[in-house]
Amino acid sequence: MPVKPIKWVGNAADGHIWIIDQTRLPLEHVELELRETSEMYDAIKRLAVRGAPLLGVSAGYGVMLGIQKAKDTPELMNALEKTADYLAGSRPTAVNLFWGLKRMRAAARENSELPADELRNRLLEEAIKIQEEDIQLSREMGKNGVQFINDGDAVMTHCNAGALATGGYGTALGVFFAAKEAGKDFSVYSCETRPLLQGARLTTWELMQEGIPVTLITDSMAAALMKAGKINAVMTGADRVAANGDAANKIGTYSHAINARVHDVPFFIVAPLSTIDLATPSGDQIPIEERDPSEVAGFRDVRVAPEGVDVYNPAFDVTPAQLIQALITDAGVAEPPNLETVAALFG
Amino acid sequence: MPVKPIKWVGNAADGHIWIIDQTRLPLEHVELELRETSEMYDAIKRLAVRGAPLLGVSAGYGVMLGIQKAKDTPELMNALEKTADYLAGSRPTAVNLFWGLKRMRAAARENSELPADELRNRLLEEAIKIQEEDIQLSREMGKNGVQFINDGDAVMTHCNAGALATGGYGTALGVFFAAKEAGKDFSVYSCETRPLLQGARLTTWELMQEGIPVTLITDSMAAALMKAGKINAVMTGADRVAANGDAANKIGTYSHAINARVHDVPFFIVAPLSTIDLATPSGDQIPIEERDPSEVAGFRDVRVAPEGVDVYNPAFDVTPAQLIQALITDAGVAEPPNLETVAALFG
Repeated sequence: MPVKPIKWVGNAADGHIWIIDQTRLPLEHVELELRETSEMYDAIKRLAVRGAPLLGVSAGYGVMLGIQKAKDTPELMNALEKTADYLAGSRPTAVNLFWGLKRMRAAARENSELPADELRNRLLEEAIKIQEEDIQLSREMGKNGVQFINDGDAVMTHCNAGALATGGYGTALGVFFAAKEAGKDFSVYSCETRPLLQGARLTTWELMQEGIPVTLITDSMAAALMKAGKINAVMTGADRVAANGDAANKIGTYSHAINARVHDVPFFIVAPLSTIDLATPSGDQIPIEERDPSEVAGFRDVRVAPEGVDVYNPAFDVTPAQLIQALITDAGVAEPPNLETVAALFG
Repeated sequence: MPVKPIKWVGNAADGHIWIIDQTRLPLEHVELELRETSEMYDAIKRLAVRGAPLLGVSAGYGVMLGIQKAKDTPELMNALEKTADYLAGSRPTAVNLFWGLKRMRAAARENSELPADELRNRLLEEAIKIQEEDIQLSREMGKNGVQFINDGDAVMTHCNAGALATGGYGTALGVFFAAKEAGKDFSVYSCETRPLLQGARLTTWELMQEGIPVTLITDSMAAALMKAGKINAVMTGADRVAANGDAANKIGTYSHAINARVHDVPFFIVAPLSTIDLATPSGDQIPIEERDPSEVAGFRDVRVAPEGVDVYNPAFDVTPAQLIQALITDAGVAEPPNLETVAALFG
């Protein structure tokens, strides 16, 4: 059973968030208890919790931390709005984070006639529901994606789109878990994913725990492996998908998609509907977060580049829909993804 | 003036090799004195000296270490052959290493009528000549390549093809140094070059020392930068070029060449004639060195991947000639490189 990377502990008025600190995995297993909204903000900012769907779940529980002390409903509503605005600033590309915050806001507004304690309980139910639904959505994605993995395949993935990136199952890795459950015989190449090495640290760890054969490579090896015929498919998650099917994901994904196309390897994006932002017409409108130069200038705590060197550190790139064979979601598959097939997912 | 990464110190019968330990740059400046052939072998193996042309220079001086104690000419000739065979095993893809060893062998055989002391002096002259010629060749490559850099260009490079990779000037970086000397106004993107980070550590350091603006990126960012129109040309060195113009270079180069083609960015290889192996018909025949898994599972002493994870670590990939706009050598430019234009370089 894939891990759950986040849980709410306690009741609505006096509880806390439990997380695994993903910056320390796999060599250290550090669990944290978050009691202040600023601790949740920092955990998101420094990627102790990361992954698009998990940020939606984190939004729900994060809001709960901000409303625990509210004495009456007006105070609670006010604290909720303030907390949601504050948490939205932690990761500018993360549409799931905004989606989770919006859902909590909507739940609060719908129930604003309730007294504070009842409203708080109702909101904790909503936050837990976001997580449970997310696990269910992952399982739906797994079901919808398993058709694209064949016996004998080696499938490449980038970054971590696993249980650690979700409420507890995975998007791209959810398809791998489902394929394993379906008895398929396949293996995975995990790209290390510089600069923060989520592939080397998290994806390898999750797959090894589930007994799925995995080989670690640097991001730069993908093209040579494809040329050698060693990769049969590429599957990654996404941080935001535009209405036309363009997909923003971890930096390096776009290069993999180009290499896949050039070598006739099918490239898939696996993401829940909540990752699709119909208000964003195309990938050109997706803002790209730039992160701290020190992530590139070093490797974990080891500084490698000369002091004072200029660094460019975009966290994401955009893969145009034309390079994506299919967009696999909980609501079905858009193949190929375009304005019409993506809209059809929303029924 | 770019650094000299290797020197012979002392005379032919009682001298040693001085090197900068390139595994420690740029944050530590460690100089080593090598007195045994095994120390030279290890320095090559662990990349304390690295870069195709520098391996040719290292071959010359390395041979000298093996013949210092020989009492007569037959003993010297025997020691020379044994040393050359031994050093050839340190890096299987490095055609320049074999070229340097062959040149020392040839010089010995041509002068095998000399007494041991005179022969040894003659061989030290040859080894020094390899280095001096290499610097001269770098300057010729610079002259031949400078036409491809325009004012306002941002040129991307991979790995380190600079003074530290040569006798003391550089192949791809030699073109940058020549462009700077010619007063051109341009900047460089240096790909960090996982797993050993020669781009982050060595290329940035060399360019900063010469006052050339440089920005460090991860290898995975290249495609996104090209799409954004931020890169006007790509220039790298090569470890071996086949007769048809296919070029083996540091892993990741092939991916850059594909991305360059897709985004209409010209891609150049800069390499001396000694890197061209006419006995190798195409890139398919170039053996690819696989290196230790620990290089990918971490960096230096920092382990990041789970214990026991499988790793694939090819050190090089092959870029087909069709993706190379021009092969820039000391003997002229093959544009585009193919069987005919490459043969023409040899006059």
